[in-house]
Amino acid sequence: MRILLVGAGGVGTAITRIAARRDFFERMVVADYDEARAGAAVAALGAAGSGDPASARFAAARVDASDEASVAELLERERCDVLLNATDPRFVMPLFRASLAAGAHYVDMAMSLSRPHPERPYEECGVKLGDEQFALADRWSQSGRLALVGMGVEPGLSDVFARHAADELFDTIEEVGIRDGADLTVEGYDFAPSFSIWTTIEECLNPPVVFETGRGWFTTPPFSEPEVFDFPEGIGPVECVNVEHEEVLLVPRWVDADRVTFKYGLGTDFINTLRVLHQVGLDRTEPVTVKSSDGMQVRVSPRDVVAACLPDPATLGDRMRGKTCAGTWVKGSKDGRPREVYLYHVVDNEWSMKEYGSQAVVWQTAVNPVVALELLATGAWSGAGILGPEAFEARPFLDLLERYGSPWGMREQ
Amino acid sequence: MRILLVGAGGVGTAITRIAARRDFFERMVVADYDEARAGAAVAALGAAGSGDPASARFAAARVDASDEASVAELLERERCDVLLNATDPRFVMPLFRASLAAGAHYVDMAMSLSRPHPERPYEECGVKLGDEQFALADRWSQSGRLALVGMGVEPGLSDVFARHAADELFDTIEEVGIRDGADLTVEGYDFAPSFSIWTTIEECLNPPVVFETGRGWFTTPPFSEPEVFDFPEGIGPVECVNVEHEEVLLVPRWVDADRVTFKYGLGTDFINTLRVLHQVGLDRTEPVTVKSSDGMQVRVSPRDVVAACLPDPATLGDRMRGKTCAGTWVKGSKDGRPREVYLYHVVDNEWSMKEYGSQAVVWQTAVNPVVALELLATGAWSGAGILGPEAFEARPFLDLLERYGSPWGMREQ
Repeated sequence: MRILLVGAGGVGTAITRIAARRDFFERMVVADYDEARAGAAVAALGAAGSGDPASARFAAARVDASDEASVAELLERERCDVLLNATDPRFVMPLFRASLAAGAHYVDMAMSLSRPHPERPYEECGVKLGDEQFALADRWSQSGRLALVGMGVEPGLSDVFARHAADELFDTIEEVGIRDGADLTVEGYDFAPSFSIWTTIEECLNPPVVFETGRGWFTTPPFSEPEVFDFPEGIGPVECVNVEHEEVLLVPRWVDADRVTFKYGLGTDFINTLRVLHQVGLDRTEPVTVKSSDGMQVRVSPRDVVAACLPDPATLGDRMRGKTCAGTWVKGSKDGRPREVYLYHVVDNEWSMKEYGSQAVVWQTAVNPVVALELLATGAWSGAGILGPEAFEARPFLDLLERYGSPWGMREQ
Repeated sequence: MRILLVGAGGVGTAITRIAARRDFFERMVVADYDEARAGAAVAALGAAGSGDPASARFAAARVDASDEASVAELLERERCDVLLNATDPRFVMPLFRASLAAGAHYVDMAMSLSRPHPERPYEECGVKLGDEQFALADRWSQSGRLALVGMGVEPGLSDVFARHAADELFDTIEEVGIRDGADLTVEGYDFAPSFSIWTTIEECLNPPVVFETGRGWFTTPPFSEPEVFDFPEGIGPVECVNVEHEEVLLVPRWVDADRVTFKYGLGTDFINTLRVLHQVGLDRTEPVTVKSSDGMQVRVSPRDVVAACLPDPATLGDRMRGKTCAGTWVKGSKDGRPREVYLYHVVDNEWSMKEYGSQAVVWQTAVNPVVALELLATGAWSGAGILGPEAFEARPFLDLLERYGSPWGMREQ
């Protein structure tokens, strides 16, 4: 297998470090808009001293992810079988189309962006997450190539858990509820999110989407249906609220469940922070006019200023402490008896920093597409068209994830 | 009396409207950095149709409040007896010095700014409010001229109340506690402060100062000693916290009290908003670098961006509803028996808008220096050197304030 990895940010870099220890692929070209960043990721593999000359399989390249034609050209020139998209969601569509054009498989960790309903944003869906991608479903099917979408941790592993529950743990499913929580803290900061505040605002203030059989997909106001979920492995109870997320769009396509939700364990303090930013209007992306420090009238996006006030989460790994948990809570029945389980995956930041030099949230996102690529390379997973992680048998994925040194768990509730 | 009013913003404009109805002065020159703004304030007096040609006593001028020499020159050219400072506190020192240089009396509504203690900001005072002014006390005394400092509503009327309590209501005073609260709301906004957010952040995040006999002045962390104070005339209970304010520095100089505090009725929501802005670092004035909407790297002050996201409070008078209350709570004993009173002044926004076209908070600040000037013009008050409002007999002030159509109240607790 020859892989074109687009994006050498935190997740992309962690992907190279995880993949370097596996021998299922022949070549990985690491491409970024900033070629130096791609080069640094590749160079670090040699420095890591993995024991074999793994870095010989890697090469750095420059690419503009928004330029479909040049991405397709790079795929062809490097004879890549698959494009792995590790950029931010704004680049989903050009990379997705470039793969189709070049006859390559495609894997991403998010889906194309949503747009709220123009009149009833907190009741009805407008353009849903992934809609732009699924609009090309027939062309992908006809091409015989696979677009595996939403194959990170959430979406991704959470979807695999949903499929596993449907196949092995339940006869009927009332609700699939993805629940994400952490107890991460950052030394020296009162407030330092462990992930991009820009994206978090986008996720949390977009109308959350919910699926119900009969009703289909619908939206609610932000921060709806708060609940306190007790996370495993010492993380403990965290306040969770509905948030727009890809699983709600993917799971119902392949798994039979009466209801699908995603709740994010933001915690009371973080929810309060987002509410205040929204009330003051600091979440807005439309620019406001202010005087710059050299006395000019300039126009800046308030949300960019919020991001600029906070430390870059990618640089905080060394100061972070704690664990992050991704998982899928499932309620239903088995053999005529009610059952409730939570399938989960916990990463301790201390472990991921020591083992891979990547912070926990980033590493947890990165490991899953590598596992998926290995399953595709070995033929354990195969398919054509646009498929979510829950379209495939879950057991091979979960077993291979364990062999990557990263076990998952299950709690009967 | 010939008055030079410097500053034709909200408070300055309200001063002209209040003064125009009084005949104790011969001339008022309204000077602003923006001469058009001064001109508009003067022109509006004619339009108001007060019945007599009051506006003939007024003139507009341009002045740079930071330019001591040109302010002194304007005082002399216009043969003004007194400078009334209605600018923001950054201009206290140049205007204060210009008055001394020109041999004019001086009245302001705030005092020179503080600087936190470099090592122990939340325990010890650094440079206190007014310190820079009081450093010139001897020169003012020798000049025979009066600098009446802190003569707005708070500080100002609140200090007059403290003196009144000491003179007529108490034998011994345990605590003088200024308490400020309001029930103002702004139609059409979730969050719209009725005063400058920039200044509010400055006031509320500076270390609050407290005075205690024996210990002297000391500071605490922001938002310390929260209490719910029940404000009169239907405003009701509001959460108040310690805030740095001039009364704490002024009252102990002339009134014998074991403890002096200032608590601001910000309310739970507003305190929460300020805490979040501080936590994220959006209260900072040091610039951060962001990309502007035309793609340039620019440096902007986060606090300026917060202000730019909110509506200009000076423009909100028509959409405001409710009342604002300034007052002084005093606890002590009279005739051997414990006593507690709250002396207060309430302005209803509907009334101040209808009567003067000024919103309540602005009008309440503006009326007090006009009353004080009238007392000085008639000789009811007189003095030399730097004095606070509590250095003068309170009764004439309180009686004259009533004659301005703005009664004060007292509640026995």
